[in-house]
Amino acid sequence: MPNISKKGAAMPESPIRKLVPYAEVAKAKGVKVHHLNIGQPDIETPKVAMDAIRNFDEKVVVYSHSAGILSYRKKLVEYYKSVDIDVTPDEMIVGTGASEAILFSLQSCMDEGDEIIIPEPFYANYNGFAVNAGVKVVPITSKIDSGFALPPIEDFEKAITPKTKAILLCNPNNPTGYLYSKEELEIVRDMVLKHDLFLISDEVYREFTYDNHEHFSVMNLEGLDQHVILIDSVSKRYSACGFRIGVLISKNKEVMSTAMKFAQARLSPPTFGQIASEAAIDTPQEYFTTVLAEYKSRRDVVVDRINKMEGAFCPNPKGAFYVVAKLPIDNADKFCQWLLEDYSYNNETVMLAPATGFYATKGLGMDEVRISYVLNVNDLHAAMDVLENAIKVYPGKK
Amino acid sequence: MPNISKKGAAMPESPIRKLVPYAEVAKAKGVKVHHLNIGQPDIETPKVAMDAIRNFDEKVVVYSHSAGILSYRKKLVEYYKSVDIDVTPDEMIVGTGASEAILFSLQSCMDEGDEIIIPEPFYANYNGFAVNAGVKVVPITSKIDSGFALPPIEDFEKAITPKTKAILLCNPNNPTGYLYSKEELEIVRDMVLKHDLFLISDEVYREFTYDNHEHFSVMNLEGLDQHVILIDSVSKRYSACGFRIGVLISKNKEVMSTAMKFAQARLSPPTFGQIASEAAIDTPQEYFTTVLAEYKSRRDVVVDRINKMEGAFCPNPKGAFYVVAKLPIDNADKFCQWLLEDYSYNNETVMLAPATGFYATKGLGMDEVRISYVLNVNDLHAAMDVLENAIKVYPGKK
Repeated sequence: MPNISKKGAAMPESPIRKLVPYAEVAKAKGVKVHHLNIGQPDIETPKVAMDAIRNFDEKVVVYSHSAGILSYRKKLVEYYKSVDIDVTPDEMIVGTGASEAILFSLQSCMDEGDEIIIPEPFYANYNGFAVNAGVKVVPITSKIDSGFALPPIEDFEKAITPKTKAILLCNPNNPTGYLYSKEELEIVRDMVLKHDLFLISDEVYREFTYDNHEHFSVMNLEGLDQHVILIDSVSKRYSACGFRIGVLISKNKEVMSTAMKFAQARLSPPTFGQIASEAAIDTPQEYFTTVLAEYKSRRDVVVDRINKMEGAFCPNPKGAFYVVAKLPIDNADKFCQWLLEDYSYNNETVMLAPATGFYATKGLGMDEVRISYVLNVNDLHAAMDVLENAIKVYPGKK
Repeated sequence: MPNISKKGAAMPESPIRKLVPYAEVAKAKGVKVHHLNIGQPDIETPKVAMDAIRNFDEKVVVYSHSAGILSYRKKLVEYYKSVDIDVTPDEMIVGTGASEAILFSLQSCMDEGDEIIIPEPFYANYNGFAVNAGVKVVPITSKIDSGFALPPIEDFEKAITPKTKAILLCNPNNPTGYLYSKEELEIVRDMVLKHDLFLISDEVYREFTYDNHEHFSVMNLEGLDQHVILIDSVSKRYSACGFRIGVLISKNKEVMSTAMKFAQARLSPPTFGQIASEAAIDTPQEYFTTVLAEYKSRRDVVVDRINKMEGAFCPNPKGAFYVVAKLPIDNADKFCQWLLEDYSYNNETVMLAPATGFYATKGLGMDEVRISYVLNVNDLHAAMDVLENAIKVYPGKK
């Protein structure tokens, strides 16, 4: 029997999925599991997008342009204009989710052994894309005490080597919810220029900002046109994860023509998802107003409840729909498994994501968990009830 | 400005797309272009699949399972049973087109520098997937005189090195239409076992066989369970290229768990495409009967017409919807460009794919073109009229 590849062996398993069998155990026992472990919103996909699919009347569902349907890219120009980002259809390649857009950007800019600096904790699947592209992730640690603000620039400078090719930011951040300020991004800009790096910015949570904070895009950093690659997705914006539609944006023509070769090899992004995404751009503003108010209430519940728990601490992030909270526990992996396997409160339990999976530095995040506030306020309160009582009796309590 | 990657620079451009600007030139002059250059069928997508999309009534379009929606995989078990292939839902990972399934299989089985043997001419995008996975393509030439039958086994044996990890077949073949027989595949089987290789088989044209020839799948080769990876797609079967739904199938558990890690990193395949593909499995048999009769008529027109042209030769392939024909020309790339840029007949011209792009060996295919018979018989006759007259006056006539 032939061997699998070394690369395949090196591919990480999703840190969240490891817990899935334990959730099955809980459910088999009749315990209700509150899923705060994944970024799958419960919000309805906008009607205007669903109607576009229901009214689709082409006779043949053909390949689209490899860069995405032109009318969709033109419509995206309007959307980006509305959020103060100036791009043309030629500066976009529609991807099968942000996932593919990230992979295209790594493959187009980086070779085997090149290094990419990412503030940790970071979205765990970046590890998979990095292994896939043969790229080494160099983490810079952000700290819970500062709410996971941008680490000091000296930490970046120390990590830069001749192999460093790019910096990857996620803003607003998954998993921390931290919203990088214009000032922080300008510091990054200067460093990127100084060392001639690419700056890849994953801004899929752009719309999700709270307390009157506004998102500032790296696309509006002056002098960085040839360095910036913007990654985006409709998944969170329109609660449309299953569309599998994202986009890679850059004003660097060489990056675009290179990414285009990867795009052409896989022919085209999904047609139905593009049709729905194009229509989604006409989603009325009230949809977002309602959704944002809902997420803000949820964040408030989670932050407030956790900060009232003894020995626990939760920053109050300004964006996305995640928090990373510190709990009085010995080992987040064990704790999250224990919640599913051994614990219930009022016949309910909660599934969380151990923060260890979001750190590249071994040993970090041992007493932290990521909570996705993707459930309604009532369910969130029930989940917080579970958590509050769980940390009192958890055998590995600190 | 930072440099793009060496891998990106090495990515091949699609040999067909190079001609697209010339087709635009022809169209701008008011010349009608018959597109025989691509594998985009004009056949209608089955109504049962389109209805499933129009009736989709979930409120939230969520991520599916990374291996694909379970009900779809269960339904695929029935489909495969109907074509005499025995698989379980656990032996399948639904991919974003066959494209992603091929990439997953290369990444899971092969490392940087490993070699994959592919009979040429072959589907040009295999080159892109190979560069992407860091894999070296070793071509074995099949000949037009034998209708592009399996090359002698000695040719394979000579090409095998310690780096050889897999053999990739496309059956029925794109671009040649050749249908490998059970006997040919058994020869490959013995070689695969002898050298302990993977056998990756792209069978997306399974249903398209003519003249009472039947397709034999590598899944039914005895003793090869741990070696075979089947690649499939709904694109051609249901004329549903835009669904972007394919599948990777293997009974090798290590291959599956490895491919699953790549699948999890990109979250999930497109939801709408899966819904439509699941419904498509109930496409009535008459659909295929009609489609196959149509394609057979088309093939007959193309083969018959070309073989009547002076100095031209076209094998009569038993599968897919392509032929590779030999023409009395000096250079297929120049000829195909000339057809678009400088030639018209009755104000019409034809876009063909130069066969050079399907050979990995430089210099081969110079007098060959691939013709996709994806147009109706009337248009095909018109296109053949163009071709017949074109080769008489082409300046690089041989």
